[in-house]
Amino acid sequence: MRRRVGIVGVGMSKFGKRDDVSVRELSWEAIMEALQDAGITQKDVDLVVAGSTAYRGVELYPAPPVSEYSSLTGKTPIRVEAACATGSAAAFTAINSIASGMVDVVLAVGFDKMTEVDTQTSLAIGGRGGNYEWEFHMYGTTFPAYYALYATRHMAVYGTTEEDMALASVKAHKYASMNEKAHLRNRVTVEDVLKSRVISWPIKLLDSSPISDGAAAVIFASEEKIRELNVDTPVWVEGIGYGSDTSSIARRGEWTSLRAARDAANMAYSQSKRSPRDVEYATVHDCFTIAEIMAYEDLGFAERGRGATLLREGQTEKGGKVAVNLFGGLKAKGHPLGATGLSMMYEVTKQLREEAGPVQQQFKNYVALTHNVGGTGHYAYVSILSR
Amino acid sequence: MRRRVGIVGVGMSKFGKRDDVSVRELSWEAIMEALQDAGITQKDVDLVVAGSTAYRGVELYPAPPVSEYSSLTGKTPIRVEAACATGSAAAFTAINSIASGMVDVVLAVGFDKMTEVDTQTSLAIGGRGGNYEWEFHMYGTTFPAYYALYATRHMAVYGTTEEDMALASVKAHKYASMNEKAHLRNRVTVEDVLKSRVISWPIKLLDSSPISDGAAAVIFASEEKIRELNVDTPVWVEGIGYGSDTSSIARRGEWTSLRAARDAANMAYSQSKRSPRDVEYATVHDCFTIAEIMAYEDLGFAERGRGATLLREGQTEKGGKVAVNLFGGLKAKGHPLGATGLSMMYEVTKQLREEAGPVQQQFKNYVALTHNVGGTGHYAYVSILSR
Repeated sequence: MRRRVGIVGVGMSKFGKRDDVSVRELSWEAIMEALQDAGITQKDVDLVVAGSTAYRGVELYPAPPVSEYSSLTGKTPIRVEAACATGSAAAFTAINSIASGMVDVVLAVGFDKMTEVDTQTSLAIGGRGGNYEWEFHMYGTTFPAYYALYATRHMAVYGTTEEDMALASVKAHKYASMNEKAHLRNRVTVEDVLKSRVISWPIKLLDSSPISDGAAAVIFASEEKIRELNVDTPVWVEGIGYGSDTSSIARRGEWTSLRAARDAANMAYSQSKRSPRDVEYATVHDCFTIAEIMAYEDLGFAERGRGATLLREGQTEKGGKVAVNLFGGLKAKGHPLGATGLSMMYEVTKQLREEAGPVQQQFKNYVALTHNVGGTGHYAYVSILSR
Repeated sequence: MRRRVGIVGVGMSKFGKRDDVSVRELSWEAIMEALQDAGITQKDVDLVVAGSTAYRGVELYPAPPVSEYSSLTGKTPIRVEAACATGSAAAFTAINSIASGMVDVVLAVGFDKMTEVDTQTSLAIGGRGGNYEWEFHMYGTTFPAYYALYATRHMAVYGTTEEDMALASVKAHKYASMNEKAHLRNRVTVEDVLKSRVISWPIKLLDSSPISDGAAAVIFASEEKIRELNVDTPVWVEGIGYGSDTSSIARRGEWTSLRAARDAANMAYSQSKRSPRDVEYATVHDCFTIAEIMAYEDLGFAERGRGATLLREGQTEKGGKVAVNLFGGLKAKGHPLGATGLSMMYEVTKQLREEAGPVQQQFKNYVALTHNVGGTGHYAYVSILSR
C-alpha cells in the first residue's frame, strides 16, 4: 500500500562552534550539498520540512527565512520539533508526505545553532527537554544528571563500569578524528576519559556530547521520481518507527532501557521485515556514553545488560558485526539538536553507497539503521535503510 | 494511490482568557471531547501530532507533557509549527501519516495559551512571525501594521472601504454571540467598529482578532478503520493543499492577495477535483477584517478586488451562496495560534454533520473548506472536506 520512498541526496554542514555563519547560511551549507548530491535544483523540490528546536537566535519561526535564503521560498509550510530527535521527526514527516502520494520530492533540513546562547542558558533550554516543572525546576536535574541516573542503574543492575562507558568515548573520538565535518577531532584514551572532570557522577566531561552548531539535509523522492531522475544508487527507506514516553523519569519504572526507543525499533523492524541481525551499520544516539550501551540493547544488537560487551569485544568498530557511529557519533561528531537525526541519515547513506572513505564499513546485505532519541526518552525514531 | 482519510471526532475548548486552566488541562478539554465524539478511547489512537507555537509558559517542548496529561503517553513523537497555521500543519502531518499507510488513527491537537505573557511580549512574539530582522526590528512593524499595509493597498487599488471591512467584524461578532465557546460574544455595529480605537490605520481595535487561549483536537482515521468503527457520518478529507512565501512583505510584489493562500487553494481544489463554486461553507483566516476580504478572492469565491461585494450582499451569511465563519471567525471566536486550524476543522465537521444548531448552513452537496494562514502569508493551508 505504501509508496516506496528513497534518499536521493544528502548534505551536512561542518559541525562545531560556527560563529562564522548565520543559521540561514549554516542551513544552506547542508541544503546546497544535498541538492548537488542529488543532481537537482530547487525547482525540483515539492516540499521542504524544517526541523529545529529552540536555539534559533532571533528566529522564533525559522522555516520561512531559512528556506528563503536557500531559494526554496514557497515550499516550506512546516517546521517540526521532537527535542533531540527533531531531525528524525522531519524525516518522518517528509517520508509520509511522499508515501501518501501527495508529493514526489521532499527536502528535510534540520538545524540548530546552540552556541548562540551561553552554556547556562543552554542547560536551561535543555532542562526543559526533561520533566520541567518537577525534576528540572525542583531538583535541578540537567541532562548529564538524567543520564547519570541511567548510568548508575546500569552499573548497579548489570555491572557496567566507568571503563566500559569510556570505551564508547574513545571509539567516538577515534572516528571523529577521520571526519572533517566533526566537532571534536582529538583522540582520547580510556585514561583521559576517566580523569576528565566529573559533571554528574559517573558522567564525566569526556562521556558527554558537546554543544554544537550544525545543519543536515536529506532529499527524499518517490520510486517513480527516482526512476525518472535515473538515480545511480538510491538508498531505500524500508521503515521508520516512532515511540514516545512520559517526560518524568520518576514515572518510567525502569532506568536501564528506553521504552520509546524499543517501541520505535520494533515498529521499524516490523515495517521492514528485518531483524537486528540484518543490520550491518548503525548510527545510535550517544548523547552520553551510557546511551550508546543502552542503544545496543534497545535495538537488539545485544541482550539486556550485555551492551558493554560489544564495546569490549570491538564488535561495533569498523569491520565488526555491526559497525556503529563511524563518523564520530553525537559524542564527537557533535549534536546540534535539529540536525542530528538527518546527519545520521547522511552518514548511513554515505556508508550504504560506499562513499565513506577511511571509515567505510564492508556490507553484504546493505542494511543500516538510524536511532535518534529526544529528551530523556520522550521521543524516539528508528529508521531502517538499505540499497 | 492515496488512502482515503476521514474525520471521526472533533473537540474544542472554550476559547478566551483561560486563567482557570494549565495548557495541559486546556488541551484535555479538546482531546476529551474529540475522543467522546469519536466513541473511542486513548488506546485506539496510534499517533498524536501536537501543534503549538511559542506561547507555552514553561513548556518549551510541550508535546509529551500535554499528551501525558491526556493519557496518551507513548503516542506523541512530534510537534509541528507553522505560526498561525500551526493547527493545519498538524492536520497535514496527521493526514499524510494515515494516507501513507503507516497508521490508522491519528489525533491532531493544537493549543496555545497566549495570555500567559503580557500584550507587549505577545506583540514581540507575534512580530517574529513577520520579517523579524528588517521589517519588525528596524521599522517596528507589528501584525496590525502588516495587515494595515494590505488594507490600504486594497482600498487604493479596488476601492474597498473601512465600512466594508467593518461588515466582516459585525458578521463575526453576530455569529460568535451564538457560540458558547467563542472568546468575544458581544455584538457590534458598523458604527462601533468605525469608532473603535485606531491600532494602525485603517485597522481599528474592532477590525482585529483578540489574543486568546484555546485548544482544538481532530481525530482522523483511515477508510478501513472508519468502516470497522461503524462511524455514522464520517467527514472525508478530499484534499489539503499548502503554500508558503517570503517572510518579507517588501519582497512580495503584491499586497492585495497572498500567493501562499492561492497556491494552497489551487492544490486543494486540484486534489479534490472541486472548484470554488462547489464550496457551500468555509472557514477563513480573518485575523483582521481585511484578511477575510482577501480570503474570498484568494479562494476564488469572488474575483480579484470584488471580495467586499460578498459582504455587502450578505452572500457569506448563513443561507448565502457560501456561508463563512458562522462560529465567529478568528475575529470573535478567537485565535489561539496552534488551535485555530484545527478549530476550523471542528467547525466544518459540525456543519457538514448538521450539528451546528442555530448557525446550521443548508447543504446540497456537502462540500466545505478551511483556509488557514500563518505569519503575514508565510504559510497557508486549504483543506476541502465533504460528507
